[in-house]
Amino acid sequence: MLQNKLISVTKRTRMTPYTRRVEAAGVKAYTVYNHMLLPTVFESPQADYWHLCEHVQVWDVAAEVQVEVRGPDAARLVQLMTPRDLRKIEPLQGKYAPMCDAQGFILNDPIVIKHNDQRWWISLADSDIKLWAKGLAQGYGFDVEVFEPTVYPLAVQGPKAEELVSRVFGDEARDIRFFRGEMLEFGGESIYVARSGWSKQGGFEIYLHAPELAEPLWDALFEHGEDLHVRAGCPNGIERIEAGLLSYGSDMDASHTPLDCGLGSYLNLQADIESLSIAALREKAKSQSIALKGLIFKQVMDFSSAANSVGGFDVWHDDVLIGEIKSQVWSPRYNKHLCFAMLDTKYLNENSTLEMCGQQGTIHDIPFPEDALSA
Amino acid sequence: MLQNKLISVTKRTRMTPYTRRVEAAGVKAYTVYNHMLLPTVFESPQADYWHLCEHVQVWDVAAEVQVEVRGPDAARLVQLMTPRDLRKIEPLQGKYAPMCDAQGFILNDPIVIKHNDQRWWISLADSDIKLWAKGLAQGYGFDVEVFEPTVYPLAVQGPKAEELVSRVFGDEARDIRFFRGEMLEFGGESIYVARSGWSKQGGFEIYLHAPELAEPLWDALFEHGEDLHVRAGCPNGIERIEAGLLSYGSDMDASHTPLDCGLGSYLNLQADIESLSIAALREKAKSQSIALKGLIFKQVMDFSSAANSVGGFDVWHDDVLIGEIKSQVWSPRYNKHLCFAMLDTKYLNENSTLEMCGQQGTIHDIPFPEDALSA
Repeated sequence: MLQNKLISVTKRTRMTPYTRRVEAAGVKAYTVYNHMLLPTVFESPQADYWHLCEHVQVWDVAAEVQVEVRGPDAARLVQLMTPRDLRKIEPLQGKYAPMCDAQGFILNDPIVIKHNDQRWWISLADSDIKLWAKGLAQGYGFDVEVFEPTVYPLAVQGPKAEELVSRVFGDEARDIRFFRGEMLEFGGESIYVARSGWSKQGGFEIYLHAPELAEPLWDALFEHGEDLHVRAGCPNGIERIEAGLLSYGSDMDASHTPLDCGLGSYLNLQADIESLSIAALREKAKSQSIALKGLIFKQVMDFSSAANSVGGFDVWHDDVLIGEIKSQVWSPRYNKHLCFAMLDTKYLNENSTLEMCGQQGTIHDIPFPEDALSA
Repeated sequence: MLQNKLISVTKRTRMTPYTRRVEAAGVKAYTVYNHMLLPTVFESPQADYWHLCEHVQVWDVAAEVQVEVRGPDAARLVQLMTPRDLRKIEPLQGKYAPMCDAQGFILNDPIVIKHNDQRWWISLADSDIKLWAKGLAQGYGFDVEVFEPTVYPLAVQGPKAEELVSRVFGDEARDIRFFRGEMLEFGGESIYVARSGWSKQGGFEIYLHAPELAEPLWDALFEHGEDLHVRAGCPNGIERIEAGLLSYGSDMDASHTPLDCGLGSYLNLQADIESLSIAALREKAKSQSIALKGLIFKQVMDFSSAANSVGGFDVWHDDVLIGEIKSQVWSPRYNKHLCFAMLDTKYLNENSTLEMCGQQGTIHDIPFPEDALSA
């Protein structure tokens, strides 16, 4: 089911300034993310995975749409949206900052990037946070503009990413620390380049604001990367699950809090900040009824008999529904089947394993402990 | 380009309670709409079109996600979001009501359905209006809840739709007027059924709130419709363009006002209503620089040489960019190539035709005049 179906592309499912290059590179599949095409497969998920872990890939992640918040009340509005303390963020620094409503539920889990006190970018997972920010700004009467700037992130990911990016942008790129960025020059433009990206292989995201440079930038990366075996790639489901990277909309949604998802370390619930969700999250931190956990099975699993009608797999124990598998993949590196599952904490308190489809799996925190993967 | 690419489906691109039936019916392609799968092709766009115009189809349009606004301030919040006067809307009536921000730009063009003064549904085009409504409610301190209810619309469209729906829901369905609805019974549940749908062929939308009835409802429609040649279908690009139905995200987006899109007749700019956008739209009504128009070409057109990097086709005149084709399709009924294009009004004031790719097209209002289609 749901295999080998085509995607219908219209103007609504937006192309990116890189789409022509992505097509020429032989993309086989897309998803739609923030109303925009996001490539998902080039050679095959497994071949793409091994290449990413060994070499360097160029990813069209323009679908990581930016929301720009600009004006005297910009810092106040951005802080209002997240329970993470943003007071000490420096210019050109990024922070993973779950956005929550007044009940503490997650509306998105973006990277917040500060350009200066009056200019911020929210680098989005898949939901229209622009509308949330606009609604708040309108209702509170804040002095800000909220809009989607013409910025098209291109990621360079993999162990050779630093070498490739420094060849194109200069050695300054090597000095950029994790989740920091610099304005670096390409094609006469000063472009925000950050050490970040949705993989554990290391790399950079180039927040290109000049669409006319999209193809020249793509081409420069390929010209300078030939001996590095550069290839077109995309966020890879195997790699991101091995790495414990969550996907908003799959692993969690607006019915979950960051605490449910094990994201407590990214929150500052004791901070004296003006954040919409902080009171609700302090209260919810006192007791937790569900938790996102990692599951490891030693066999290739076929979960189809547990498929529910909303795209997940139901987890049962003694005829009680105790949770749902949200994402799952076979890891060719560890020879294990890895899952993220939202599970009832009552069950978790009493059990460290779980049976599904006749097989026993072990339950772990996310990211998976290395010894559990290697066991 | 962008032909025959696969769609990657995860939990984030949500399945619907009808997806298993849609798959069994042989769906060939999907798009993603409100983070949910929306079927786009069964046999072929042309075969689907002719069948829709002659018989009756069942459409999984669960991706027409509802936003429920409930509470003492519900009517006030919904009115604030649209420049259409909702004061006289009756219970169970629907109204096409563009949602605009304080600058008059369109954020969505949903159907607003009133259950009662304190309970409304916003039946969405493709954007997260829930976040806009939640932001406004939060900022203004309104006493409302805003949430996505578990409602999965199923459309029954085509000239035999009334016959089929009345066989399943009873003859009361025949008395429902356009954009009105009734609570009708199926499977022991009272379900909101409206005479509406995204085609000009007539039909109903069944706002099923009980997902466990999704497959029984689908099956009942097929059992009762065998002699009516019922088939699975979906919104059809040929039919909707012939009919002049706009698609938010393709034909217009948050850079356009309803006035730009020829939707002035759905606004009540002189009404004494509390609507965020009404002041800006009154001002913008004084002069208009762009307008969405229909174009008709008598030949099969290949616009690929005009393709731009954002999924549209650029329209040039004397080396000046005067607009963009947003949607376009060959009409097998009229033997004409039909387009929706956003064009510079300066050009429109002086011209009633337009040359593209070496062919002359005529410019019309939307919906296309019947005599222009038949000419």
